[in-house]
Amino acid sequence: MRLRDVDLRRSVESERGLFVAEGEKVIRRAIGAGHPVRSVLTTAKRLDALADVVEGAAGETTVYLVSDEVMEGVTGFPVHRGALAAMERTELPSVGALLTGAERILVLEDLVDHGNVGAIFRCAAALGVGAIVLSPRCADPLYRRAVKVSMGAVFAIPYARMTDWHGGLAEVRAAGFRLLALTPDQSAVPLDEVPLSGRVALMLGSEGDGLSSHWLREADQPVCIPMSPRAMDLGVDSLNVVAAAAVACHGLLRNQVPNRVTG
Amino acid sequence: MRLRDVDLRRSVESERGLFVAEGEKVIRRAIGAGHPVRSVLTTAKRLDALADVVEGAAGETTVYLVSDEVMEGVTGFPVHRGALAAMERTELPSVGALLTGAERILVLEDLVDHGNVGAIFRCAAALGVGAIVLSPRCADPLYRRAVKVSMGAVFAIPYARMTDWHGGLAEVRAAGFRLLALTPDQSAVPLDEVPLSGRVALMLGSEGDGLSSHWLREADQPVCIPMSPRAMDLGVDSLNVVAAAAVACHGLLRNQVPNRVTG
Repeated sequence: MRLRDVDLRRSVESERGLFVAEGEKVIRRAIGAGHPVRSVLTTAKRLDALADVVEGAAGETTVYLVSDEVMEGVTGFPVHRGALAAMERTELPSVGALLTGAERILVLEDLVDHGNVGAIFRCAAALGVGAIVLSPRCADPLYRRAVKVSMGAVFAIPYARMTDWHGGLAEVRAAGFRLLALTPDQSAVPLDEVPLSGRVALMLGSEGDGLSSHWLREADQPVCIPMSPRAMDLGVDSLNVVAAAAVACHGLLRNQVPNRVTG
Repeated sequence: MRLRDVDLRRSVESERGLFVAEGEKVIRRAIGAGHPVRSVLTTAKRLDALADVVEGAAGETTVYLVSDEVMEGVTGFPVHRGALAAMERTELPSVGALLTGAERILVLEDLVDHGNVGAIFRCAAALGVGAIVLSPRCADPLYRRAVKVSMGAVFAIPYARMTDWHGGLAEVRAAGFRLLALTPDQSAVPLDEVPLSGRVALMLGSEGDGLSSHWLREADQPVCIPMSPRAMDLGVDSLNVVAAAAVACHGLLRNQVPNRVTG
């Protein structure tokens, strides 16, 4: 299969319950997160470093030893650190199960760019977000580029995918979360001025259009990141979604009560 | 020339004083920023929309009318909105000239990824940064991807490139700027706790290694963005540079004295 063909990969990978992990470090993190290895494509030179990975999964794992040239020819790109593994997906928790353990979460609506999804997972891990809920159509965190950009955080931050876009937010609210919708609209309340106690879900919209009007209506409160008064004159009407997520997660972390005692 | 070959483009473009602008909107913004158009590659279908661009530069601009297929064949990628222009670079200001007008600036050391450079320009425009200084080896803001990701902010935020990496920061300090070095080192003072009055230069390092030890030593103060105590356990030891830039610029903006009266 052509690994650069996103559509083809999407259907084949989800149908067969697979994803592709690239590089020894990522493969190890995926294994650590409980993903079985189905097969490994690597070079003779790299095999030693992966010996335990292959042996640990003995019997079940097929190893394809090829040259660098064949590897690049088969995949269509220079493979990071010369190892590519087909890993098995594990079942995601339901949204309800995911939310029992979290205080601060992100809800991502229909992000398209895998790099952005990965970068947001990295922000979440760095800045104390406990879990991430994805809309039904949001880009896959286990796509190769998302995994890479996340620095492996997609294996560390628990996440779930809504099955119902229309009614999904109601389930988050029912779990006790206050829904804050991040919008570039500068007439919304600045996030820094919102008192943040209890469970908070920060909603982030897609790259082009932001949050849908349905989700904006469903939110408890629209919030914004204040921009410079000159921004519009400079032709910039918003932050990109990763930058917005970073500022917002930083805001959530600053407002988090330290050493909170729970009964 | 192969437009996907970064090394080739770097030498050809800087030698001939060119850069490539993609899409009508970007071409117009580049023209608005004073860049003459040397040539335009487009389709007959798109020519009408670009008529004034081509006519305004009459005599000097060569127009190549081709089919979509030829355009993609020549460039090696699907061209955004079917128009590509070779634009002339204009002379950048010196660092000294750039700094006379700015209060809050960024100094970027050796960023490699053009998308990151573009995203940081967008953050700067959104969050009130007045100017950007690039290290001698920092990636080019006029590279096609940087322009695209910046949403055109590379044409709106003035910038200059140091000629001397070793002594460059001294010139910034001599212009009255306090040099804050952003580091993932959590023992540094959190940026939010640093009193920010007067001229402030925030230094951001390269994607892999962060700021060089020389630049860290040259700084007036290392500052950090506090991370969650759990981040290291989750395998994440830093924010990516765009996320860090966004949080830091937001911090600078929050601390900016509003409606400052200058004599």
